[in-house]
Amino acid sequence: MDDLFHLGKQHIKDTKPYQAGKPIEEVERELGLSNIIKLASNENPLGPSPKAVEAATSALHNIHLYPDALYFKLRKKLSQYTKVDMQNITLGNGSENCLECLIKAYIDEDSNVVLDQYAFATIRILVKAYGAQEQLIPSINYRHDVKAMVNSVNSHTKIIFVVNPNNPTGTYITHDELVYLLDNVPPTVIVAVDEAYYEYMDQPDYPHTVELLSKYANLVISRTFSKVFGIAGLRLGYLLTSYPVSELLHRSRMPFNVNSCAVAAGIASLEDHEFLARTKKVNAEGLIQVRDGLEALGIEYIPSVANFITIDMKTDAQLVYNQILHKGVIVRPLVPYGLPNHLRVTIGTYDQNVRLLQVLREVYHA
Amino acid sequence: MDDLFHLGKQHIKDTKPYQAGKPIEEVERELGLSNIIKLASNENPLGPSPKAVEAATSALHNIHLYPDALYFKLRKKLSQYTKVDMQNITLGNGSENCLECLIKAYIDEDSNVVLDQYAFATIRILVKAYGAQEQLIPSINYRHDVKAMVNSVNSHTKIIFVVNPNNPTGTYITHDELVYLLDNVPPTVIVAVDEAYYEYMDQPDYPHTVELLSKYANLVISRTFSKVFGIAGLRLGYLLTSYPVSELLHRSRMPFNVNSCAVAAGIASLEDHEFLARTKKVNAEGLIQVRDGLEALGIEYIPSVANFITIDMKTDAQLVYNQILHKGVIVRPLVPYGLPNHLRVTIGTYDQNVRLLQVLREVYHA
Repeated sequence: MDDLFHLGKQHIKDTKPYQAGKPIEEVERELGLSNIIKLASNENPLGPSPKAVEAATSALHNIHLYPDALYFKLRKKLSQYTKVDMQNITLGNGSENCLECLIKAYIDEDSNVVLDQYAFATIRILVKAYGAQEQLIPSINYRHDVKAMVNSVNSHTKIIFVVNPNNPTGTYITHDELVYLLDNVPPTVIVAVDEAYYEYMDQPDYPHTVELLSKYANLVISRTFSKVFGIAGLRLGYLLTSYPVSELLHRSRMPFNVNSCAVAAGIASLEDHEFLARTKKVNAEGLIQVRDGLEALGIEYIPSVANFITIDMKTDAQLVYNQILHKGVIVRPLVPYGLPNHLRVTIGTYDQNVRLLQVLREVYHA
Repeated sequence: MDDLFHLGKQHIKDTKPYQAGKPIEEVERELGLSNIIKLASNENPLGPSPKAVEAATSALHNIHLYPDALYFKLRKKLSQYTKVDMQNITLGNGSENCLECLIKAYIDEDSNVVLDQYAFATIRILVKAYGAQEQLIPSINYRHDVKAMVNSVNSHTKIIFVVNPNNPTGTYITHDELVYLLDNVPPTVIVAVDEAYYEYMDQPDYPHTVELLSKYANLVISRTFSKVFGIAGLRLGYLLTSYPVSELLHRSRMPFNVNSCAVAAGIASLEDHEFLARTKKVNAEGLIQVRDGLEALGIEYIPSVANFITIDMKTDAQLVYNQILHKGVIVRPLVPYGLPNHLRVTIGTYDQNVRLLQVLREVYHA
């Protein structure tokens, strides 16, 4: 690599690009397989809402026009959905872009960021790309240790990230734990709670984050349309914050960072209550189906509340991943998380789950 | 504004968000008008290519899946179109996102960036958001002064931006001028040429930038699908660079920064030669129509080679803008560029141009 790479900023050069789930087409091309199922990226196995597809199709006819840079309609709709004032909602090109806008606004090379050791990899990549030191807090039983997080705060700490439930562990912290965290860190430290799987949660002790926003101006909530709403390919996420933070984010984001199809599909997705209910039902049933199947096979797993489950193969999971891949099922190895024996599998439809359990049986007892 | 705004990074706090062209719906809502035409954002008056709409519609059915993070198909297609090796093509969520990836990779608070005084505002906003000093070079007759640009380079200079043709002035630098610039700046200084209007150009002395890429590893070319290809609402742009730069950009961009509808529409747009030819013809004829009309009205303009033209109203153009707006035609005042008497108008269809000239006549001779 010659000079023009080396002239780049050190923490960009040091960035290790995110390892995405393998696309179906790539596996088809490389392995000459068909009838492949992808349970690697926590996508909605039911596809997108038909109403979202219809709305986005309609939006395509005006796609020569730039989006409304203030995204009035979608933010208004999200305000009704979340009960958060429209001025405190910031949109992003996926929640990754939301988190990047937040990090870009607050973090520099003097900053320290607190994260769980198994926190979603994209956040760690971003934190490092902006030059911050990361303070990794050991998990307790794969759960965030909020007391240790509080104790790790120092004068350089700018943001504490809580991924809730966490990807890839599938565990969550409770409302009381989050309140403890908020009550015990300085009000100048941002507590950023990623709720990518929010709609799947029906645990009564799951945090009611929106209710906490009015009390804690340092609370930031990120959510996405890539999971339960099934439009990962359109890239749409949003942040719920206090007003001072949203004013800063408005300066940190690019004016047209969300595309017009995502806007139309996002609005329609929020209106399709039937699709949301069906997605949640399929996932709840699928989680039980997969857990029961894993137990029957004697495969250990981390109890999950989300639309995926992380399993412990007690052996080099990269090898298992490859074996499964050759049988046409794409899952996610967790080597980048320091979990070399674990695989993360997305909960699919009933038939997909049957096939997953079948290939696991074939490789596990081989 | 309380603490959590002030705790943000100084150059983000100082950012003045980009003033976008007013959306049609907003004008309808605010002024109670209908039959509005928008000639404010240099969009394609013919709309998107029907083939692009068809391809994007089809892509919507798999929109629950994340995009291929490497964007293999679109980059391969762009490689054929541009004659640049696929590994040297980086995609972005509009060319704004491309330019942000570049700036993020190279620029910090010690950096100095060279720009023309009338350079496209988004670039200046980005440069400042990343903390760099901008070195503004006075234009000569609204054209970039390449000699002054060369002379302004110092040991802190990281990037020289050439917007070609420039938005909002519509002027361009020639192949010889660009070669002069490249020959006279250190090979460690990036020369970033924004060619958002590339396909409109048929001037024989317009730079053949791709041919220069192999000789000058510090040359970066940015292009967009928002103008001639008519898919501004889908957000798609790309960078053509040398390999060391593309390797750095791969670490600077987010893995899913382009949505799947943009990918599908982008590929189809590159294949729709008929639409491209028709767009260019309508624009070439429209430019003549508008120039002739302006001359008949006695309104001065900056000679433009793009799909817009900047006119000098010899009076407060913000007032004229408002008068025109109330007649249902949205154009762009150029106060943010230090051009308080100028308006930028997009070349429309024949009928739109007639209407533009009509409202200009009404307000100019009022």
